[in-house]
Amino acid sequence: MKFLFILAVAFSLSFIPSASAQESENKWRSLDLNNTVLLELATGSVVIELNPKFAPKHVAQISNLVRSNEYDGQSFYRVIDNFVAQGGMNVETTTKLPLLKLESDYQLSMKDHYTAVSNKDMFVENTAFLNGFAIGFETKSKVSWLLHCPGIVGLSRQNEPDTGSSDFYITIGQAPRYLDRIMTIFGRVVFGMEHVQKLNRTEGIEGELTDRSKHSKIIKMRMMKDIPVSDRIIIEVERTDTAQFEKKLTDRKLRQHPFFYKKPPQVLDVCQVPVSSRQVITKS
Amino acid sequence: MKFLFILAVAFSLSFIPSASAQESENKWRSLDLNNTVLLELATGSVVIELNPKFAPKHVAQISNLVRSNEYDGQSFYRVIDNFVAQGGMNVETTTKLPLLKLESDYQLSMKDHYTAVSNKDMFVENTAFLNGFAIGFETKSKVSWLLHCPGIVGLSRQNEPDTGSSDFYITIGQAPRYLDRIMTIFGRVVFGMEHVQKLNRTEGIEGELTDRSKHSKIIKMRMMKDIPVSDRIIIEVERTDTAQFEKKLTDRKLRQHPFFYKKPPQVLDVCQVPVSSRQVITKS
Repeated sequence: MKFLFILAVAFSLSFIPSASAQESENKWRSLDLNNTVLLELATGSVVIELNPKFAPKHVAQISNLVRSNEYDGQSFYRVIDNFVAQGGMNVETTTKLPLLKLESDYQLSMKDHYTAVSNKDMFVENTAFLNGFAIGFETKSKVSWLLHCPGIVGLSRQNEPDTGSSDFYITIGQAPRYLDRIMTIFGRVVFGMEHVQKLNRTEGIEGELTDRSKHSKIIKMRMMKDIPVSDRIIIEVERTDTAQFEKKLTDRKLRQHPFFYKKPPQVLDVCQVPVSSRQVITKS
Repeated sequence: MKFLFILAVAFSLSFIPSASAQESENKWRSLDLNNTVLLELATGSVVIELNPKFAPKHVAQISNLVRSNEYDGQSFYRVIDNFVAQGGMNVETTTKLPLLKLESDYQLSMKDHYTAVSNKDMFVENTAFLNGFAIGFETKSKVSWLLHCPGIVGLSRQNEPDTGSSDFYITIGQAPRYLDRIMTIFGRVVFGMEHVQKLNRTEGIEGELTDRSKHSKIIKMRMMKDIPVSDRIIIEVERTDTAQFEKKLTDRKLRQHPFFYKKPPQVLDVCQVPVSSRQVITKS
């Protein structure tokens, strides 16, 4: 444990880039409403932030489908507890849509202000946050990709890599990190994740299928920008490129609160670090 | 990646104990109904397997409280999405109950047939399964403890270690492994986890508290043994000490299915390995 402790502290001092004082004053950022999706479920609203930096063609196609109201009335036809909620038009019926080429790897540039989290991850050399998304990256090449933490939104596919078009999945359990880099992640849930968790499971224990009539429906999906201003759900998301967020990471490693009468190993699972959101309600 | 691959395979060959042919014929085990709890929620039934091996005094006290119907009508008063659902009598009202001394460490003996999973975990030297529960252990000392994977049941406490008595939490998100060894885990959900996920969240984004009237209730909690035979929910759980289960672990590392057109790193997160359950329905 002592070994872990020393390495972790050294890592946090030397690898986490420092943020300017100006940044630390501004904890929150607004979402780009052109890249934000409202998913209406029976129990409530879910807000998804799309990620055009890592998956531009996926974001374009999904946004087009949303704008054409294609998802309205469709169902979550594969919901497995502690794994994924998969929904959409069901691939068999959507062969007329253009198949999307996998978009996973992204070359980090000097402009990308990521915040390093760990170099002890089981699946990748380094983990970090970039614009609220958990990423993995390689030190030398600076090639990065989005990670399958809970609440990410990815494109379903067949066995071959470039075979998805419309159906998507939301991760609802322990991060299925073995899917990193072989699936395209194009967004993440920033609000209403509890409603995704309330979707009816379609496979019980031992994988038996449930009645189709019990599948939860997508009431509608809309681009937030296309919704009348008064009906929008405006979410602000915690910035992950600030000194405040770095401090949050350090605090989660050090665990100074008296509740931790014995300190846990000073490491961080990137998928276990919450990135906060808040709803902005404008009084009229 | 190649480095990880070689190490992982070597590990699986040399560290995972081999199971006898006899064992491999028997995939399932029955639960001890004296150590099984039925938790009735508004949306359905949840079955919890208690673990008297690791937490004998906790199991005894919780079982007594269940037998006295103490939890009936109580609520889940702290439910945080992707973290825990905490319920019970609320510590403030239960100071008359004996406080429990933390029960975490368990000395593995020759009789304990654990199945090793990984020596690349971020929090502990080795991970393994023992009787369906995810454990961590140290190679030299063979000291082990239960891990905070999704669906475990632990005892809530104040800041001091030995201050819990009745209230419990169920983990509902990415494994909060930093709680390992500083909390007592005394059981795990083996059926109906989706109903735990449907509990009303009591803290929204940014931690604001919700109305007490919206807290989900515990309809009742009973020891399965005390329930009339016809009303019992009989669950069988996948054995984790068999050759079949070892093969399942190996398969999850190697990922030979064509879906994995590119193989993921050959490592396993112990909290991401599902241990199956099945319901036994007796026709009368």
